[in-house]
Amino acid sequence: MSIITIIGSGMMGSALAFPARENGNTVRLVGTPLDREIIDACRKTGQHLKFDRPFPEGVEYYQFEECAGILNESDLIICGVSSFGVDWFAENVLPILPAGVPVLSVTKGLLCQEDGSLISYPDFWQTKLDALNKDNELCAIGGPCTSYELVAHDQTLVAFCGKNMATLERLKKMMETSYYHVIATTDVMGVESAVALKNGYALGIALTIGENFKRCGKEELHYNSQAGVFLQATREMHSLVNHLGGTDESFYVGIGDLYVTVYGGRTRKVGILLGEGYSIDESLEKLQGVTLESLVVAGRVAKALRIQAEQEKINLADYPLLLHVDSIITDRAPVNIPWQDFTKNN
Amino acid sequence: MSIITIIGSGMMGSALAFPARENGNTVRLVGTPLDREIIDACRKTGQHLKFDRPFPEGVEYYQFEECAGILNESDLIICGVSSFGVDWFAENVLPILPAGVPVLSVTKGLLCQEDGSLISYPDFWQTKLDALNKDNELCAIGGPCTSYELVAHDQTLVAFCGKNMATLERLKKMMETSYYHVIATTDVMGVESAVALKNGYALGIALTIGENFKRCGKEELHYNSQAGVFLQATREMHSLVNHLGGTDESFYVGIGDLYVTVYGGRTRKVGILLGEGYSIDESLEKLQGVTLESLVVAGRVAKALRIQAEQEKINLADYPLLLHVDSIITDRAPVNIPWQDFTKNN
Repeated sequence: MSIITIIGSGMMGSALAFPARENGNTVRLVGTPLDREIIDACRKTGQHLKFDRPFPEGVEYYQFEECAGILNESDLIICGVSSFGVDWFAENVLPILPAGVPVLSVTKGLLCQEDGSLISYPDFWQTKLDALNKDNELCAIGGPCTSYELVAHDQTLVAFCGKNMATLERLKKMMETSYYHVIATTDVMGVESAVALKNGYALGIALTIGENFKRCGKEELHYNSQAGVFLQATREMHSLVNHLGGTDESFYVGIGDLYVTVYGGRTRKVGILLGEGYSIDESLEKLQGVTLESLVVAGRVAKALRIQAEQEKINLADYPLLLHVDSIITDRAPVNIPWQDFTKNN
Repeated sequence: MSIITIIGSGMMGSALAFPARENGNTVRLVGTPLDREIIDACRKTGQHLKFDRPFPEGVEYYQFEECAGILNESDLIICGVSSFGVDWFAENVLPILPAGVPVLSVTKGLLCQEDGSLISYPDFWQTKLDALNKDNELCAIGGPCTSYELVAHDQTLVAFCGKNMATLERLKKMMETSYYHVIATTDVMGVESAVALKNGYALGIALTIGENFKRCGKEELHYNSQAGVFLQATREMHSLVNHLGGTDESFYVGIGDLYVTVYGGRTRKVGILLGEGYSIDESLEKLQGVTLESLVVAGRVAKALRIQAEQEKINLADYPLLLHVDSIITDRAPVNIPWQDFTKNN
């Protein structure tokens, strides 16, 4: 069995303690400086503040200052920070990574470079590791997994991506349980871009839920329009993942992730409010305290595409849904789903 | 404006009277011999027995015996029979089709030939038309559209497929409204196979809903496992649609259709009961009166694949989800979703 250290005790990082520990590993959950209360509570109750059941017996809890000593003992370090913690992780964790220990990151997102190219967080961290002359392998998790359902032992299928298949197979073996299933793939850019893209598209699908709430009341659910936008999202995501150099396999992972994101959490809520007719500012006001990772990511992808379109690398007309979502978020445009554009069979 | 005759007053055929009539066409809804009561009721109340709102003003209703005279006046004949009416339509309608009038069919399904090849209903009818020496063009509708939501004017995106793009554009113009949007495509086999395939896959996804009902109660909804099976369904459908000669565009239409089918109606209900642990016979017993089109289609596709695998045209290991669904339906196997097979990145 292995020693797995999870840095970042947000919901997703913490949820991974369940399969990790139930698989027989030693599991150490380390809070960032923002997670102090969570770790205090875990120590007292053995349960995460946001979960409805306790951690498996034996998980250990650490504040970040206490982790220097235990990092060296780790066989795997899981990065569980949110996308707002990417720089923090780069500055505070990468320099103290013990030699040869792989990192598995759940942080999802892309960064837009000045030339319009998109890079993943592992790519970003790799440049930092190179500068530090460190050899740690960076792997990442993508795919359909909400933390509270993982905690509830719902059957879950995700992808681990990284450069080295042998490492991925090793991590898969450490983490896989009877309910946590892992696809291993070396298509890092494909998985990262598919998983990032789903944010804007989930918002687009949720718009129709809000539109129908407004039109018909909240009791009646309408799936034709959700499915119509899902169709268009599938079309655009396939094109974009391929354009960014990803494989069809990673696109499938993104579609699964899109499906779960339409149902889970914050992106859905923002989309519904927008569809009901609230502006983006009003919607965010109503959802105070909500983090906006998905909106940030959708905006970055759209920005990258606009730059690439100027360079004639892509045709913006192929992505009417993403651009509409971006115009709502970035330009405060009203919701007006471009259905006619979706009938154009390219 | 055009004269549109709809033959078959089941839910989907009847729902098409809404966009057809609201678009300003003359619309005549003709019942099959099985639809006598529906037509009687429509004449009395102006409303379909299964819809919660009346037809648009001006729709006309006919029993099948009365339609001979009006067929000749039609610019378009819509076939609204269920897949159990395919032979009836071939024997009773194809021979009396007026020359030059196109047919647009909503009947979904595939037929398995002895050599393991699959043919669509339009293909099947084409052989009959050829034998009758008739020139009518056969087109079909696929994509995400439940009848009651179309009736409720939910935004809807579907595909019209046929051999002749000019004809498809003409039909699109006849039928398209502010809420009914049409993709025109000449990929008949792709659309028909994608739309047929979604039946078995929707059942597969619904299994997880039933499993979670059993495990956690009906209040708690779990989407990780739905999304995991959706991921695998996306992978298998893409491969199968391409294998059957269809385009990626048709695959997207099928994915939209899969999404809506997980939520609507009978396939979902059967899948949930199976997931809860009832056998296929018990499930069908509980859903008395339910038609089994989706199960029939899923069984036919699986049969075709098994024949093609014997001929070494495909590898059955690429389709673990479809084969599991088929084993439940055909061999009365218990539900045991092969999650480990889904982690194999082909």
